[in-house]
Amino acid sequence: MTELSSDNGSADVVGVGNAVDVVGVGNAMVDVIATTSDDFVEAEGLVKNSMTLIDEARAKQLYGTMGPGIEASGGSCANTMAGIASFGGTAAYIGKVSDDQLGEVFAHDMRATGVDFDVPFATSGPATARCLILVTPDAQRTMNTYLGISSLLEPSDVQEATVQRAKLLLCEGYLWDVDSAKQAIRKAMAVARKAGGRAALSLSDTFCVERHHQEFRDLVAGPVDVLFANRAELAALYETDNFEKAIEAARADVDLACITMGKKGSLLATPTELVEIEAAEIAPVVDTTGAGDQYAAGVLFGLARGFGLYEAGWLGSLAAAEVISHVGPRPARPLAELLDQPDRQKSSKTL
Amino acid sequence: MTELSSDNGSADVVGVGNAVDVVGVGNAMVDVIATTSDDFVEAEGLVKNSMTLIDEARAKQLYGTMGPGIEASGGSCANTMAGIASFGGTAAYIGKVSDDQLGEVFAHDMRATGVDFDVPFATSGPATARCLILVTPDAQRTMNTYLGISSLLEPSDVQEATVQRAKLLLCEGYLWDVDSAKQAIRKAMAVARKAGGRAALSLSDTFCVERHHQEFRDLVAGPVDVLFANRAELAALYETDNFEKAIEAARADVDLACITMGKKGSLLATPTELVEIEAAEIAPVVDTTGAGDQYAAGVLFGLARGFGLYEAGWLGSLAAAEVISHVGPRPARPLAELLDQPDRQKSSKTL
Repeated sequence: MTELSSDNGSADVVGVGNAVDVVGVGNAMVDVIATTSDDFVEAEGLVKNSMTLIDEARAKQLYGTMGPGIEASGGSCANTMAGIASFGGTAAYIGKVSDDQLGEVFAHDMRATGVDFDVPFATSGPATARCLILVTPDAQRTMNTYLGISSLLEPSDVQEATVQRAKLLLCEGYLWDVDSAKQAIRKAMAVARKAGGRAALSLSDTFCVERHHQEFRDLVAGPVDVLFANRAELAALYETDNFEKAIEAARADVDLACITMGKKGSLLATPTELVEIEAAEIAPVVDTTGAGDQYAAGVLFGLARGFGLYEAGWLGSLAAAEVISHVGPRPARPLAELLDQPDRQKSSKTL
Repeated sequence: MTELSSDNGSADVVGVGNAVDVVGVGNAMVDVIATTSDDFVEAEGLVKNSMTLIDEARAKQLYGTMGPGIEASGGSCANTMAGIASFGGTAAYIGKVSDDQLGEVFAHDMRATGVDFDVPFATSGPATARCLILVTPDAQRTMNTYLGISSLLEPSDVQEATVQRAKLLLCEGYLWDVDSAKQAIRKAMAVARKAGGRAALSLSDTFCVERHHQEFRDLVAGPVDVLFANRAELAALYETDNFEKAIEAARADVDLACITMGKKGSLLATPTELVEIEAAEIAPVVDTTGAGDQYAAGVLFGLARGFGLYEAGWLGSLAAAEVISHVGPRPARPLAELLDQPDRQKSSKTL
């Protein structure tokens, strides 16, 4: 953690003079989204509203039993980069797809959204990753991910020149699995920070945190400047159900902890401030896929552009509200439109 | 054309005792749907609200310039079969995909919708067809189709046992292009009619009609019992801008002509009756892709289940209204729910 100079709710967590707002590193994948019943989720033995890693055989079996779907480019961190670009920010993405049709779809959608994406297609190895997403009538999403080639990201895929240009780097916890991918994340964080940028980590999922608990603790206490987590992930990370204690632990570890709480909004915690952000109201909620990703897009865009903490958090709330109003993990309308919302100008509330 | 026994607006255009409601033969493809501006459509030199065939190079170029998309299984006749199944009807589909990821998506979606689909994946030749669909703010869709393997349907792909079981056969005009596919359609129509079923043809697009004008005239005057067309396609077929004359010509050619007129609803014309069907109101209209396909689903399901002409047409209007209320060419909710709408019980109006 580096010293944070805070001024009226504004967090100085961005690299000065860097040309790209945010660079993301994550699992590149295409989502296959199908609406389904709670009974189906239960019959398949799935943990609702969570992410389960599945192998190719299980992916084939589950795909065979699930209903008709639509395909949309996804991947947590990739969704966030698409959101940054949708806000009008500059973003680049580092993730691995194969030279198959879904890889082509993923690459097209990133570039068409305005995100720089230059990692070469893998010409051998597994197929492009896909996430089978079941959306229940309550708009919750249950994700089943076949990681394919995405988890085999190598340190050599992390282009130093790209990372060095970034004000902020976002790495997703989902990618923290295979050793080479871990090395890729460590490399990206080191390169970003050496160049004056800041490193953010999304904890992604409680199962991720539980699988790699000590490593995540070391990362957060080490190179991570900005942390994204929901309450359950934070509890898993600090092994406490006491929310106050978990927040205090995070404030000791990072410059900025962004803690999402669903309908209750979010908290932005720095070592010296605690800013409460309400959720933006939206009705009806159609599909919660991508809510956390777009929240991160709003916050990171705000930070990169020098907005105050409250403003950045409120952009996160607005972006999350947009994405849960429709099927799919990425914005359906330009998030830049949200910049004109008068509520954005609310002054920072410090608790 | 065979003799039609009509009773109080009910058209006896279905095969008695056949086990499957409708079998479809068409171009199997996956849609890539992106919202765009009128300026983009114009800049790309596209004919708005029409379908253009494109080769692989143009598909690559256009895909490179268009915005991020979502993928959804499509294909005109395949959409109709999905609609039949969504109504609770029995449907089978004959079309050709390759053994690639989009082929897998297409096959999965057909089967998951409840449509029998048993044509083997092609293991050589071009890729699975895709249709690049640009949806403008007025909800109109402009389609650009790379036919890939779909147009190479062979007569041997038409399983006689499947076609023989069908009350109704629907073939799409779009498929009328390569000789082997034409032979496949002729075979399917002959097999269906010999087994006591009836053959329907969708004219699909004015360009299709113009490209194969005399052949379409011969088909409609020959084995086709039921015709689906919009006003422009009907005008192209009979080479007249006089709508009355075109209708009279169709009534002389087929047992039932189903003529769609967009917001003005549709006309069901038999040699002895002319039934006017209003459009079902829907707001807002989001994406008109699949409107004609789902209209056909409603009409064919109604005919197969012995509903009167008005009822069948009204189901078509309701199904079309459902599909234009969201992005994507297939129903987002079970069309069987429409069967409970009281308006369906309206008595037939004979003009």
